[in-house]
Amino acid sequence: MSERKYRYIGTRAIRPDGLDKVTGRANYGADFVLPGMLHGVVLRSPHAHARILSVDTSAAEKLPGVRAVLTGSDLPDLPPDMVGGVEGHTNFRQLSMNTLARGKALYHGHAVAAVAATSEEAARAGAAAIRVDYEVLEPVLDIDRALEPGAPLLHDDIGNGSNLAMRIPFEKGDLEAGFAAADLVIEREFRTPMVHQGYIEPHACVARVGEDDQVVVWCSTQGAFVVREYCASLLGIDPAKVKVIPSEIGGGFGGKTTVYLEPLAVALARKAHRPVKMVMSREEVFRSTGPTSGSKIRIKVGARQDGTLVAAETDIYMEAGAFPGSPAAAAAMCMFTQYSIPAYSLVAYDVLLNKPKVAAYRAPGAPMGALAMESVLDELADELGIDPVELRLRNAAGATDRAPTGVELGDLGLRETLEAARQHPHYAAPLGPNQGRGVACGYWFNGGMQSSANVTLHEDGTAVVAIGNPDIGGTRASMALIVAEELGVPYERVRSVVVDTDSIGFSDLTGGSRTTVVTGHAVSMAAREIVDELRARAARIWDVDPDEVRWEEGRALPPNGAHQPLSVEELAAQSGALGGPLLGKGSLNVGSAAPAVGVHVCDIELDPETGVSRVVRYTVVQNAGKAIHPSYVEGQMQGGASQGIGWALNEEYIFDAQGEMENPGFLDYRMPVASDLPMIDTVIVEVPNPANPYGARGVGEIPIVPPLAAVANAVSHAARIRMTELPLSPPRVLAALESAAGG
Amino acid sequence: MSERKYRYIGTRAIRPDGLDKVTGRANYGADFVLPGMLHGVVLRSPHAHARILSVDTSAAEKLPGVRAVLTGSDLPDLPPDMVGGVEGHTNFRQLSMNTLARGKALYHGHAVAAVAATSEEAARAGAAAIRVDYEVLEPVLDIDRALEPGAPLLHDDIGNGSNLAMRIPFEKGDLEAGFAAADLVIEREFRTPMVHQGYIEPHACVARVGEDDQVVVWCSTQGAFVVREYCASLLGIDPAKVKVIPSEIGGGFGGKTTVYLEPLAVALARKAHRPVKMVMSREEVFRSTGPTSGSKIRIKVGARQDGTLVAAETDIYMEAGAFPGSPAAAAAMCMFTQYSIPAYSLVAYDVLLNKPKVAAYRAPGAPMGALAMESVLDELADELGIDPVELRLRNAAGATDRAPTGVELGDLGLRETLEAARQHPHYAAPLGPNQGRGVACGYWFNGGMQSSANVTLHEDGTAVVAIGNPDIGGTRASMALIVAEELGVPYERVRSVVVDTDSIGFSDLTGGSRTTVVTGHAVSMAAREIVDELRARAARIWDVDPDEVRWEEGRALPPNGAHQPLSVEELAAQSGALGGPLLGKGSLNVGSAAPAVGVHVCDIELDPETGVSRVVRYTVVQNAGKAIHPSYVEGQMQGGASQGIGWALNEEYIFDAQGEMENPGFLDYRMPVASDLPMIDTVIVEVPNPANPYGARGVGEIPIVPPLAAVANAVSHAARIRMTELPLSPPRVLAALESAAGG
Repeated sequence: MSERKYRYIGTRAIRPDGLDKVTGRANYGADFVLPGMLHGVVLRSPHAHARILSVDTSAAEKLPGVRAVLTGSDLPDLPPDMVGGVEGHTNFRQLSMNTLARGKALYHGHAVAAVAATSEEAARAGAAAIRVDYEVLEPVLDIDRALEPGAPLLHDDIGNGSNLAMRIPFEKGDLEAGFAAADLVIEREFRTPMVHQGYIEPHACVARVGEDDQVVVWCSTQGAFVVREYCASLLGIDPAKVKVIPSEIGGGFGGKTTVYLEPLAVALARKAHRPVKMVMSREEVFRSTGPTSGSKIRIKVGARQDGTLVAAETDIYMEAGAFPGSPAAAAAMCMFTQYSIPAYSLVAYDVLLNKPKVAAYRAPGAPMGALAMESVLDELADELGIDPVELRLRNAAGATDRAPTGVELGDLGLRETLEAARQHPHYAAPLGPNQGRGVACGYWFNGGMQSSANVTLHEDGTAVVAIGNPDIGGTRASMALIVAEELGVPYERVRSVVVDTDSIGFSDLTGGSRTTVVTGHAVSMAAREIVDELRARAARIWDVDPDEVRWEEGRALPPNGAHQPLSVEELAAQSGALGGPLLGKGSLNVGSAAPAVGVHVCDIELDPETGVSRVVRYTVVQNAGKAIHPSYVEGQMQGGASQGIGWALNEEYIFDAQGEMENPGFLDYRMPVASDLPMIDTVIVEVPNPANPYGARGVGEIPIVPPLAAVANAVSHAARIRMTELPLSPPRVLAALESAAGG
Repeated sequence: MSERKYRYIGTRAIRPDGLDKVTGRANYGADFVLPGMLHGVVLRSPHAHARILSVDTSAAEKLPGVRAVLTGSDLPDLPPDMVGGVEGHTNFRQLSMNTLARGKALYHGHAVAAVAATSEEAARAGAAAIRVDYEVLEPVLDIDRALEPGAPLLHDDIGNGSNLAMRIPFEKGDLEAGFAAADLVIEREFRTPMVHQGYIEPHACVARVGEDDQVVVWCSTQGAFVVREYCASLLGIDPAKVKVIPSEIGGGFGGKTTVYLEPLAVALARKAHRPVKMVMSREEVFRSTGPTSGSKIRIKVGARQDGTLVAAETDIYMEAGAFPGSPAAAAAMCMFTQYSIPAYSLVAYDVLLNKPKVAAYRAPGAPMGALAMESVLDELADELGIDPVELRLRNAAGATDRAPTGVELGDLGLRETLEAARQHPHYAAPLGPNQGRGVACGYWFNGGMQSSANVTLHEDGTAVVAIGNPDIGGTRASMALIVAEELGVPYERVRSVVVDTDSIGFSDLTGGSRTTVVTGHAVSMAAREIVDELRARAARIWDVDPDEVRWEEGRALPPNGAHQPLSVEELAAQSGALGGPLLGKGSLNVGSAAPAVGVHVCDIELDPETGVSRVVRYTVVQNAGKAIHPSYVEGQMQGGASQGIGWALNEEYIFDAQGEMENPGFLDYRMPVASDLPMIDTVIVEVPNPANPYGARGVGEIPIVPPLAAVANAVSHAARIRMTELPLSPPRVLAALESAAGG
C-alpha cells in the first residue's frame, strides 16, 4: 500500500443525512404519497402448514372501496429452474411462492391474498371477506423432526422426498490422522433459535403502473436493482419498464435484500389502474419476513498439548424456513477459516420447515458457526491452561492459507487484531464476583459483486457523487470523503446521493459489507476520470503533454513549475469554456471486499438468584483495513456487537405447537435497548486490503460474528457451566445453575 | 456527412411518455405531495408603479394556520453586478427583485409578499391580512412614452437616467452607398403587442429545506440546473445543497426558463420548517410571469430593379418589462441574416416599462423582426413584380456569409427550403374570393450550450439513457432512438429518463432548440463509449486487438470473420463476468445547434363584413438537418405555426390606463384552438448540420419566426392594404378596410 497521506479519508466528517434523520424530515418507505393512491393489505395464513383448497374473493370484490383482489393464480407460474438475483442464487419460482402462496400455505403468516382499496380500513374489510378453505396439515417445526423419516414434507418437488433441501460438504486433509494426533478432543452440540434482524422500519412501498406497464416502485430496500429484477421476473414484466426508487432505509441488516410487498403492490396497481401503497405492521414483519435460521451444530475439535489444532469436524444444520436458502454453507465457509487446521470436515445442511423463509442477517450463518467453534476453543484453552488469545495466535492462518472454497486468504491482520485485544486494558482488568470474561474471534469473507458510480464536478466548484446503494451505514459520508480526497473539493461541497435504478449503472445491493469498499472503489475510479480530464485541460491551457501534469491536493501542477498551478475550483469554473461538463464514471465487479476478522472481549455479571446475565464491559477489536470514516466503522462495531449480545442473551422466535409465533412484537421479542448495554469500546486495527485504493475492508458484518461466542464464553465462566444453547436467558441460565447445583 | 443507413433514427417510434400523459398518470408540478406540507400564496401589487412605503405582516402572522410570512426584507440584498444563469446573462439582483419587490412595485401583479399556511385558504387569508402602504406613481406603459424625456423612471440605478436599459448596434458595409444604389426603397414601422406563451400548466413547485439547509425543489421547469443556480444565488445557499427534481412539464415555450415561485417556496419552507407547495392561478401566470415583448420596429430596405437587396436599416425597440432583458438584440441577430446584404445597420433598444418582466418565448424576438423584414420584402416583390419566393432565392445567403455577430453561417439549406416551398402544390393552388396568400421566410440561430448524458447497458439487455433536460418536445423518444441506433438495443428496450440535478452532469435548459441536437450528441458520445468498451471486451474474448473489432448493427465483428460475431445482448449478459456494469457518459459545450431556416405559405380568407381573417391553408417548409423523430419535428412545425398565427391574428395583452391587464384568462386572451385552424401541412427538408453525428439541427423555434409575416402578408393581400400592426384582429382589420374605403 502507498504511504499516502489523506486530507479527508479517515476523518470523522459530519454525516450528510444526519440532521434530516434526527429532525424527522427524512422520507422512509411509508412516506411516499401519490395522487389517487390505494392502500393494499395482505391476507395471511393462520396455519403453519395447510393445503389451500379454495379461495373465494367474490364477496371481497363487491365491498365498497375495494379496487383489486389478488391471489396466487394472478401471478405467473414460473419454471422451477429460473434463477437470478443476488449472485445468481435466487430461485424465482420459490420467491414467487413465498410472496404469495400457491397450493399450500407453508408458515403461519404466509401471504395468501392481497387487497387494494381506497382506504386501509376498506382493504382490511376486503381481506376479511375473502373465504379460504384450508386442509390443515401437521407443521414441521424443528430440525430434528424435519429430518425424521416419515416427517410431513413441505414440498413435493424439493428435497427428493425429504425436508433436506441441500447438503454441502467441504473437506481438507486426513481427518482420521488428524484426530489421532490430538492430545485433547472436545465434542459438543450447539443450538440457537430463529432470530430477527429487528430493523426499526417495517417494509413499505408504493407502486405505480402505467397503462403501458411502465412500473415505478418506491420502497425501503437495501438493493433497488434487486427489487427491479425481482418485480420484473415475478410478474413477467420487461425489466426495461421497471424503475425502483429507494427511500431512506430504517435498518435492514440483510432483511431488506429481497421482496415481500413490492410485487404484490405492483400486481395490485396493475389490476386496479391506480397506485398502491403497502406498509407492514410489526407483527407482519416478525411473522412473514425473513429472520435468520435457528441452528443445530455438532462440532468436534482436536488439539495438541501446546494448543495446536490438528483436526476439526462439524455438521451444521440450519433452518431454511419454508423454502431453501439457509446460510449453513456460509457458516461452513467461515467457521474454521481464520485458523490453520491441517484436516477438517465441514458439512452444511439446509433444512426445510414450516417457519418463515429466512433472509440474510449480517454475516449470515457465521455467528452460529463461531458460537460452536469459539466455545470449543475456549474450552480447549481452559483445559490446556493456555490463554485463550494466545491459543488463537498459535493457530492463526497465514497469508497463503486458503478458505474452504479454495480462495487464498491474504493477510487477514488476525495477529495484529489478537495482539491489540490482548494489549487492551480490558483484557487485564480484574473481574468482580459472579463475573466471567469471554473472548471470541470471528471471520467473515465479505461480499464483492458489482458497483457503479457517477461523479460530477460543477462549474460552481461543487461535486456530486451518485451511487445506486441505499445508505444503511454511512455510505454517503464515505463516498463524499473519497470524492473530496481525489478531487480536492471540500467535503462540505460534495453532495452524496443515492439515486434510482434509471439514474445509475447496475449496482448490487448494499450488503455483504461491500459498499464502502466496492462502491467506494467505483467512486474512486469515477473521480480519477475527472482528475484525468482536469489534467488534460490544464495541459491544453499550458500547451504541455497531459502525462506531465501532476494532480496534488486539488491542484494541477505543471511540469518544472513553469506555470502557476490550477486549482480544482479554477478548472471547474471554466469547464464550459474548456469543453463542457466534467463527468466521471466508475464500475467494477470484484470477488470480495476482502475478508475481515474481529476479536471481542466480553465481561458478564451473572445474578445467581435470577439467572440474569448483564454485560458489564465489552470491547470490539477489528481489522478495518483502512477506516474511511472511523466513527461509522465504530458504529458498525458497536451495532454488530449489540445485536449479537441480544441474540446471545434474550432474542428468540417462540412458536407454539401449531407453529404460530407467540412473541411477534418488541415487548415480547426482547432486543437490547440502550439501558441494557454498557458503552461498547472499540479498537480499529488497520492491516490494509491491497485490492482497494485506500486499503479498506468490509466492516459491517464481522462485528456480529464473535458476540454469540464471546457472551456464551463469559456466561459459561461466570456460571462455571458450559452453555451451549441460546438464548442465555434468565430461565435457561437459572435452570442450568439449578441443575448443576442439584447434580 | 456519412451516408449511414439508420435502423431507428428517422423512424416514427411510439413516444415513451404518451400513455401516461393521455391517461392522466403523468405527474406535473402541482402533483407532488410531502408529509406536513404547507401551501404558499403570493400577495401581488395592485399597482403597476408604486413606491412601497411599508409592509405590516403582524396581523397575518397571528392568523390561525399561518406558519411563515415573507417580504422583500427577508431576501438577501445582492450586488448589482452579480450575474450568471443562462449563458451567464442573468442579473441576479434584478431576478431577486422581480421575484419579490423591494422598495417599489414595478408592475401590476409584482410579488410583494408571500405566505405559507396549513391550507391554501389560510394562506389566502394571511395574504389578505398583510397591510401594504403604497405611494402610487404614474405607470409607463408604452415604448414611446418610456423614452420621452421626463417620463417617470422605473429604476434609479439602471438606464442612466432613462428607461432605456440597453442599445446594441450591429453594422456592416456602407449604408449610404447601399441606399444610393437602390432602385426602390421601402420604409415602414411595425408594432406588435405583448403576448404570452400560453403553456397549459401554470407554474408550480414544492420545496423542502432540511435543518442543515439541504434544499429539494420539485417543479415544472425547462431547466432544473437553472432553478438550482437561481435558488442558490437568490437565497445565498451553497448550490452544493440544492437538488432540483423536474416534473413533467405542461408546456414552457421559453416561459419556464426562469424562476418565480421556487425561491419563495424555498424561503418559506426554511422559515416555516415545513415543506411548502405553491401553484399559480392562470391569472397569476398572465399578470406575473414573463410574456414576450411588445415591439416597435422601424425598417428601411433598398433593392435594385432585379430584386437584389443593396441596403437595409432598422431600429428595433422592444419592451423589457420591469427589468432589462428584451430579445431586441436576438431579433437583430436574425432579421437580415438569411440574406446576403452588402450594407446594413441593426440597432436594438431594450426599453423598461411597467409591465411584467419578459421571458423567453420560442425564438425570442425573431418573429417580430421577421414581421418587419418579410413584410417589406413582400412589398418589394409586389412593387418589382417578382415572385416573392424568387426574390428571396435571389438574395439567399451563401455558406460563407456571416451573421451580424460575425459567425460564419455554413450551408443553411435556404435554397432547398425555398425551392421546396415553391414546388409545393399549395404555392400554385388558385385562391378564392377575398383570399390572399402570404409567404415569409425565417431564420433562427439556435442555442448550443452544455449537455450531459449517462447511458447504461444492463445485463438483461436493456439500456437506460438519463439526461438532465426536461422533455418538452419529444426528447425522451429522440434520445432512445439514438441509443437504439448506436447500441443496437431495440427501441422498446431503451428506457429514456429525465433525472434530477444530483443524478446527471450539468445540463443547460431545454430551450434554444438545442436539446435533440446537443443533448443528443452527448447521448451519442455516451453510447459510443459503451460500444468501445463492448468492442474491447469482445477483443479480450477473441484475444485480438480492440481496434480490429468492428461494431455493426448491434454486433461486435471479429477481424477476418475468425469468430462468430457477439451480439449486444450476449455481451451485456456477461457484463458482470467481463469486468462489471457497462456505463457511458457524454458531455459537451457547443456554440449552436446549427442555424435553422423555414418558409411558410399562408392563405387567408377575409370576411369584409366583420374583418375576421381565417387561415384556410397553411404550409410549413423547414430544414431539419436530419429529423431524428419526424413526427415530433412535424409537431414542432405545426405548433410553432399555430402559436404564430394566434399572435398574428388575435393575441395581445390589453392594459388599462393604470397598467392593469384587462384580459388575464383564456376566455379573453384569445389563443387559437383546433377549430380555428386548418390542418397545417409540413415539408421537412434535410440539409445536414455537419457538427452533429446525425446531421440534426434545432427545429423547435424556427417555426414561430415566419408566421407573423406570412399571415400579415396574406391579410394585406386579401385586404389590399399593407397591415403593419398586430394583432390583425377583426376590429383592426375592419377599421383599416373602412379607413381605406373612406380614404
